[in-house]
Amino acid sequence: MKTYRIASVPGDGIGVDVTVEARKVLDRAAGKFGFSLSWTEFDWSCERYTRTGSMMPDDGVEQLSAFDAILLGAVGFPGVPDHVSLWGLLIPVRRAFAQYVNLRPVRLLPGTTSVLAGRKAEELEMVIVRENSEGEYSAIGGRHNTGQPSEFVLQESVFTRVGVERIIRYAFELARTREGRVCSATKSNGLIHSMPFWDEIFAEVAAEFPEVHSEQCHVDALAARMVQAPERLDVVVASNLFGDILSDLAAAITGGLGMAPSGNINPSGEHPSMFEAVHGSAPDIAGQGIANPVAQILAAAMMLEHLGETVAAQAIRAAVDRTLGDRTAVTPDLGGTATTARLGSVVADQL
Amino acid sequence: MKTYRIASVPGDGIGVDVTVEARKVLDRAAGKFGFSLSWTEFDWSCERYTRTGSMMPDDGVEQLSAFDAILLGAVGFPGVPDHVSLWGLLIPVRRAFAQYVNLRPVRLLPGTTSVLAGRKAEELEMVIVRENSEGEYSAIGGRHNTGQPSEFVLQESVFTRVGVERIIRYAFELARTREGRVCSATKSNGLIHSMPFWDEIFAEVAAEFPEVHSEQCHVDALAARMVQAPERLDVVVASNLFGDILSDLAAAITGGLGMAPSGNINPSGEHPSMFEAVHGSAPDIAGQGIANPVAQILAAAMMLEHLGETVAAQAIRAAVDRTLGDRTAVTPDLGGTATTARLGSVVADQL
Ligand SMILES: CC(C)[C@H](C(=O)O)[C@@H](O)C(=O)O
Ligand SMILES: CC(C)[C@H](C(=O)O)[C@@H](O)C(=O)O
Repeated sequence: MKTYRIASVPGDGIGVDVTVEARKVLDRAAGKFGFSLSWTEFDWSCERYTRTGSMMPDDGVEQLSAFDAILLGAVGFPGVPDHVSLWGLLIPVRRAFAQYVNLRPVRLLPGTTSVLAGRKAEELEMVIVRENSEGEYSAIGGRHNTGQPSEFVLQESVFTRVGVERIIRYAFELARTREGRVCSATKSNGLIHSMPFWDEIFAEVAAEFPEVHSEQCHVDALAARMVQAPERLDVVVASNLFGDILSDLAAAITGGLGMAPSGNINPSGEHPSMFEAVHGSAPDIAGQGIANPVAQILAAAMMLEHLGETVAAQAIRAAVDRTLGDRTAVTPDLGGTATTARLGSVVADQL
Repeated sequence: MKTYRIASVPGDGIGVDVTVEARKVLDRAAGKFGFSLSWTEFDWSCERYTRTGSMMPDDGVEQLSAFDAILLGAVGFPGVPDHVSLWGLLIPVRRAFAQYVNLRPVRLLPGTTSVLAGRKAEELEMVIVRENSEGEYSAIGGRHNTGQPSEFVLQESVFTRVGVERIIRYAFELARTREGRVCSATKSNGLIHSMPFWDEIFAEVAAEFPEVHSEQCHVDALAARMVQAPERLDVVVASNLFGDILSDLAAAITGGLGMAPSGNINPSGEHPSMFEAVHGSAPDIAGQGIANPVAQILAAAMMLEHLGETVAAQAIRAAVDRTLGDRTAVTPDLGGTATTARLGSVVADQL
């Protein structure tokens, strides 16, 4: 029997609540589909930071490198600045393991409705392929003349040929397995160094995929299009920041952040990939049993898919669909009264 | 009788079509409300660029400085790269005249419906206060190792204390005249130099306005909130790039880009301010008499408001509302059959 070594990092807040449920569903799927999961749990979090001064141990990345995949809850806690929590855990892991693809599929799940008027589920299915290792999220920059009237800050964006090419190529390859369409988010009219470069490489890679329809759209217009004509989007490829914004928006029009999974993927398989919900740690509702675990369960399904357990992944998605579709167990954010644990158990039972 | 000197720069594509109508409405308003407008038209455009190699003459900014206000159509033309057309006209004017506020109010106009399900007009009224002179739109940056595998591009964002403080203060002052609420778009968890600085100054300025409710929200979550809970937003203050994205999204949920006006404002009045529709030049539908002139007419109303002709501005808005509300003349994008010129004439007649 195949055994996968999984690192679980529940993190903070509802990250903990929803990871318990994802694990419950994964263990049930393993039993049913003939593989096993060997779990190691890490307490890396803002809670750990307030105790020890760091989000994870110095050799944290090294420890994770022994695993086949990582299931991350969420990090973030009042009092710990976001740039500490994220640059102390999430972002270094994404980069150390060359998880240069952040894959964010959305679809309208059964039993849920879109905030957009009159939209059918087929019109709302898309995937944001977000660059995950460089771009606007850069540690380069700093402050000058602190405290003086002439004070200013520089923040560098860094786009490499390697980085841009690989994410765009990934998007085209993915498009071939879907509807054969890629839309690139740009802003070359405002950001006159980075985005013309992005566009140039997009055109080069597009030429290698003549069978895939390609187009580009300025990010402002693309955000508008996402709510006005979502049916015209399927694979959207975007820089780190643009992908961050567009994927939250895509989640918002398809049932909300409680439903949106995400994979931080190292496509070569040389390093472990990491799976997480798009939502944050929501400390205000943590530990109350009311968080919606669907996004994290769907992230777990993405993890299985990535590990090659496609049938099990598909079964989990179908179980989620059934659970939500007949409203057997839905959490308060979806208008139901089920607890986090109950939703998780029902999905597991549906397998 | 008071006379205002107005520079009209229709630009390209539908910029020309809609500016004719805005001028028609403005001239009628002048006659009715007892002031006069002295127009000077400039042919600065991509069309000019293809003829002469520049969007405007070398002393273009100097020529404009003699006017009380500028009415801009739109620039952009197939074959002329956006970064040429915009950095050759729109962006230098914004900066030379310290038009550091880009004011983008949206509301759902009568007779139009939102793409958001079940939203009433009161829930969709907000204004994006966009920083318009610095930030992510910077000419600093460049390419290294061109054509080599190690090629990369740097794109600098520049945030000054002066620039951030003045836009945030403007937003708070505006909030005092509205619902007393300001939400700041940030991304300090990802952009760890620029956005913590922005947040710090936001907190400082907020402290000067204890009577205004202030909050901040990451731009990704804010985009989601704009479609999930728009009623919780009123004044949104944002950097140049974030404001660009959020204002297109705000326009999209309130009837589309055909309806959204924008003012590039120099609050001190030392330099002329410039008014334009949020939409672009849409070359595909130019010259056909089908473009919707409402955004440009509302931009003209913002211009009158800025010049102190508040009553006339209000009358133009009311005339637009009546025209759309009873569907006397609506363009094809709104499901009607009226031409651009007819909509303009009806609004003028309604005054
Ligand atoms: C055309 C472009 C440079 C411009 C901008 O991003 O500022 C436009 O999108 C706008 O919003 O006025
Ligand atoms: C928490 C933050 C740094 C992160 C990001 O922007 O990458 C989050 O918003 C996400 O989308 O995963």
